[in-house]
Amino acid sequence: MTDGEELYKLVAELYPICRSITGDGVRRTLEIVDREIGLQLHEVPTGTQVFDWTVPREWNICDAWVANAAGERVIDFQASNLHVVSYSVPVRARMPLAELKRHLHTLPEHPDWIPYRTSYYAESWGFCASQRLVDSLPEGDYEVCVDATLADGHLTYGEHVVAGQTEDEVLVTCHVCHPSLANDNCSGIAVASRLAGRLGGTRPRYTYRFLFIPGTIGSITWLARNEDRVGRIRHGLVLACVGDPGHLTYKRSRRGDAEIDRAVRHVLERSGRQHEIVEFSPYGYDERQFCSPGFDLPVGCLSRTPYARYPQYHTSADDLDLVRPEHLQDTFDACWEVLGVLEGNRRYLNLNPKCEPQLGKRGLYGSIGGRSDAEERQMAMLWALNLSDGDHTLLDVADRARLPFALVADVAGSLEQAGLLAAVSIPAAR
Amino acid sequence: MTDGEELYKLVAELYPICRSITGDGVRRTLEIVDREIGLQLHEVPTGTQVFDWTVPREWNICDAWVANAAGERVIDFQASNLHVVSYSVPVRARMPLAELKRHLHTLPEHPDWIPYRTSYYAESWGFCASQRLVDSLPEGDYEVCVDATLADGHLTYGEHVVAGQTEDEVLVTCHVCHPSLANDNCSGIAVASRLAGRLGGTRPRYTYRFLFIPGTIGSITWLARNEDRVGRIRHGLVLACVGDPGHLTYKRSRRGDAEIDRAVRHVLERSGRQHEIVEFSPYGYDERQFCSPGFDLPVGCLSRTPYARYPQYHTSADDLDLVRPEHLQDTFDACWEVLGVLEGNRRYLNLNPKCEPQLGKRGLYGSIGGRSDAEERQMAMLWALNLSDGDHTLLDVADRARLPFALVADVAGSLEQAGLLAAVSIPAAR
Amino acid sequence: MTDGEELYKLVAELYPICRSITGDGVRRTLEIVDREIGLQLHEVPTGTQVFDWTVPREWNICDAWVANAAGERVIDFQASNLHVVSYSVPVRARMPLAELKRHLHTLPEHPDWIPYRTSYYAESWGFCASQRLVDSLPEGDYEVCVDATLADGHLTYGEHVVAGQTEDEVLVTCHVCHPSLANDNCSGIAVASRLAGRLGGTRPRYTYRFLFIPGTIGSITWLARNEDRVGRIRHGLVLACVGDPGHLTYKRSRRGDAEIDRAVRHVLERSGRQHEIVEFSPYGYDERQFCSPGFDLPVGCLSRTPYARYPQYHTSADDLDLVRPEHLQDTFDACWEVLGVLEGNRRYLNLNPKCEPQLGKRGLYGSIGGRSDAEERQMAMLWALNLSDGDHTLLDVADRARLPFALVADVAGSLEQAGLLAAVSIPAAR
Repeated sequence: MTDGEELYKLVAELYPICRSITGDGVRRTLEIVDREIGLQLHEVPTGTQVFDWTVPREWNICDAWVANAAGERVIDFQASNLHVVSYSVPVRARMPLAELKRHLHTLPEHPDWIPYRTSYYAESWGFCASQRLVDSLPEGDYEVCVDATLADGHLTYGEHVVAGQTEDEVLVTCHVCHPSLANDNCSGIAVASRLAGRLGGTRPRYTYRFLFIPGTIGSITWLARNEDRVGRIRHGLVLACVGDPGHLTYKRSRRGDAEIDRAVRHVLERSGRQHEIVEFSPYGYDERQFCSPGFDLPVGCLSRTPYARYPQYHTSADDLDLVRPEHLQDTFDACWEVLGVLEGNRRYLNLNPKCEPQLGKRGLYGSIGGRSDAEERQMAMLWALNLSDGDHTLLDVADRARLPFALVADVAGSLEQAGLLAAVSIPAAR
Repeated sequence: MTDGEELYKLVAELYPICRSITGDGVRRTLEIVDREIGLQLHEVPTGTQVFDWTVPREWNICDAWVANAAGERVIDFQASNLHVVSYSVPVRARMPLAELKRHLHTLPEHPDWIPYRTSYYAESWGFCASQRLVDSLPEGDYEVCVDATLADGHLTYGEHVVAGQTEDEVLVTCHVCHPSLANDNCSGIAVASRLAGRLGGTRPRYTYRFLFIPGTIGSITWLARNEDRVGRIRHGLVLACVGDPGHLTYKRSRRGDAEIDRAVRHVLERSGRQHEIVEFSPYGYDERQFCSPGFDLPVGCLSRTPYARYPQYHTSADDLDLVRPEHLQDTFDACWEVLGVLEGNRRYLNLNPKCEPQLGKRGLYGSIGGRSDAEERQMAMLWALNLSDGDHTLLDVADRARLPFALVADVAGSLEQAGLLAAVSIPAAR
Repeated sequence: MTDGEELYKLVAELYPICRSITGDGVRRTLEIVDREIGLQLHEVPTGTQVFDWTVPREWNICDAWVANAAGERVIDFQASNLHVVSYSVPVRARMPLAELKRHLHTLPEHPDWIPYRTSYYAESWGFCASQRLVDSLPEGDYEVCVDATLADGHLTYGEHVVAGQTEDEVLVTCHVCHPSLANDNCSGIAVASRLAGRLGGTRPRYTYRFLFIPGTIGSITWLARNEDRVGRIRHGLVLACVGDPGHLTYKRSRRGDAEIDRAVRHVLERSGRQHEIVEFSPYGYDERQFCSPGFDLPVGCLSRTPYARYPQYHTSADDLDLVRPEHLQDTFDACWEVLGVLEGNRRYLNLNPKCEPQLGKRGLYGSIGGRSDAEERQMAMLWALNLSDGDHTLLDVADRARLPFALVADVAGSLEQAGLLAAVSIPAAR
């Protein structure tokens, strides 16, 4: 199987589970990720204060339906977990259609799709259904049942750490709180898991921390419980909606010019991929919390088509047809290349800074001069030597030289071996 | 009457008066403004040294004409005060046409218009007339009379102050030295007066100082006499040529990025008006003096069509037909909005800077999540929270969020009331 | 003769000489330059360590040829000095065509041209010839002769200094190591010589140092022997390929915004010439060494068509037809104007910084005001006054005012004479 196929298989396994911000759906999801890469699980009790927020009661659902006068289920949670507004309180009642409709959510512009709705912090209940179905309901009384529990329990999240050579961290996060939405965010869970798996066999420069967390309340909870280690985070990436056919879209961190911002831009630009770089805004996924002014972490968000910009967003059409193996693989490849830039980005000092060193006598230069072309590798060497003043990083070199980072990093290695460059110990990240 | 009609009525009342940089025309003008808003009048004696300049002798004119051999007035000051070069010395003489022509100014490219000319600092006399009239003059002797006085007296200017909550000042100036030119600058006098009137009933944050001054020598005189208070000026606006049909044009201060520059740009850009922002240059109106390197005040200049860029500029065609009520009103509205930005622009500190506060529990957020749209007001709140780090002003927030300043200021107020933001006492202006 | 004709005559005289990085060809070249402007000659012994490099053995060539079985010279150094790979070791041998071909260099895409090749630092020998000639060689044995010496000797370079009023230096360099290539770089030698000659009669503000050096090893040698005086270099220009029909191309210094970069840009932009400004890169001519990170000197490179971007580059077609008098003159004129900017660029302090001074009473301003145009000279005066705060240079003024430097410098002189500006003693260069 290709990477893409493996990724898709994981998405397909995660897809049917009914997740919310708390409850057993999250636990079942994390079990699957645990099987793949191993996870440290955290259970945070209801009522725990996390900054301005409180960990909510845990929501679990067994069944839910709307039945007509004949007792037939016309809306059935068993058919799609999107049918129930997430965090609906338990209810068992009989009511006429008009009253029922006040609890029904539809998408008139997409009459066959079921919308996805939540009501985490306001006690209520509701059903989501296709407009066509709701339009077909005859007048009459309906039986409504939400067989759910909303009770003290825990908020669950998972953490996976790949220990690196330094305590400086790269954070990769994804949200695990959405039910059957394949792109948003089974795709993110899959790509994050696989990145962790791929890093597993290595001893990277950075320590990598992967978070599998419910959106918003999850990142807030993690930040509240890890405030003392936040300073170690040098770079971060939120992964969301990464399996659809759209081109890659990167949303910059609040800082706008953090190393992660420049690394992703470099990879996307150099790859020749169609792509888009958008400015930070305080709406979106968990970068909202990581980039709140009290933290201002260098965390960006990578998506293909960003939230709310594809019609299937937050509907039943965000399904296993929308996500494709090749798109998952493309995202994974880009992420892997970005991590490669972060890993390899250093500052070097030219040990022979006055005039160029004689590359030829070290076997680093062709012996027949006077050619009317300069080869890319030799240009990379000259650039690395010229800009290695202890100030520029290799990414600076690659950007100014308009050369691929990997090539610049490679020649820097050769020049270091030849004794012409020395890595500067000051960390590259600010 | 609309604002525009009121403004136009004032322009029409000011238009006929024969103004120069000194003399009774200025006094009559200031009497009218005094009637509207109340003015503190200043009379500065001839010979007073003001920096590199000296307050000139006062010029007053009773009558002036050129008569033909038959004694008929062929050029007559009573018909248009533009006919006499401003500051012409008294003369009574008879001369042949050829000699007379050395004292005549015309506009060959606009043969029906009378040009406007001055000779403040070189003793001479002259007449301005239409090319057509001059061409029609037969050979022969002409009688010339300028019945004017050029004698020790005073330079007159008016000042109007609206006391604010702070001593930090906003300066609004216009020139009162041009004779019958409606756009340049009866329009500026009218808009400035009305802004002062509108502010009158309020207790604004800033103290507003309105100057009604002769161009160049007036601003130099004011600066020389108020050198000690110049440091209080936080923002300033010169109003000139603000009633013609052209779109609004703002000329930046010498600093280029002062808060006034950013406020005007924000208002013009957000309004959807066609407009133009031009860089500072040391030619134009009194911003030349306010932006001289020894002061370098944050003073820009707002016009519709700038000086010398409309054909009627400094001619008899700059008349009551060129200026229209709706253009005066549009300028007034833009100015008023700019003052609103200056008044409302503050720095806030997010009191809950770690992660987002829970807006929902404060009634500041919709309770049904998962919607695929984010409303503008909620975006404004998130932006205000995210950027309120004590560094960004609300104008910074509005610009970065691409939202109207008024909306951002409004939500900041709500967030302040909810205890989520606190205004920072450091003044926003640099 | 025009400047262009004189320049062309010198190019034509330099063209036939067989130059390399060492040897008598360089000496003959420098004799010609010495006759024109006087030169201080330097002879640096073989084996001298210059930073990472070693001065190589001296190469001199008497004759070289390839003869066919009939004893006829089919490739003959006497016909073109490009026929021999520069620094070929002596050889006398007989070999079949197949073996000979391993030593032959051609340009298949230009079958009539002879390429230019060197092998300075790898011991080998070779011939260059047209593809057409090589294709016409019948099978058989060939006699090969390179009658050259490669022995201890010297590296030769020339230096010419025009003493200025200060010890701050402007460096102008060109390479003298290429054989019969007219544009690359007989043209550079000619323009540099003539600039030196033109400066000769003057007592400029800067001291001008002209270097006539072999490429790479020459600049490295000069830098190694003059490390202590490098700090005096305020501006520098490498001249190469300056006689072809292409438009002028300026390659910025590594700093990118050095005064030389801004001066050249100003001259090229203001002149209305078609031109190109390219970013620094660490490949090209001796700016590579001057801009190495240990020196980072403000040295740019002026060319017409840059190296490797014209088809005749490093071939026998870079001949006396490619270079034309009018192009040499155009380059010379631009250089002379650039030196004029460097000479004239100063910071001034406005001695009357509060409001404008009254120009009229000093005879610096027209006496009839109210004109609808502002003349360029008066605008230049107002700009010079407005920006002369001790921070802006005259080049800053000219750029911001979009006026020619020469005009701004001229009015600054008038304003200085009038006591309104005073030159600031701090040097303009950083």
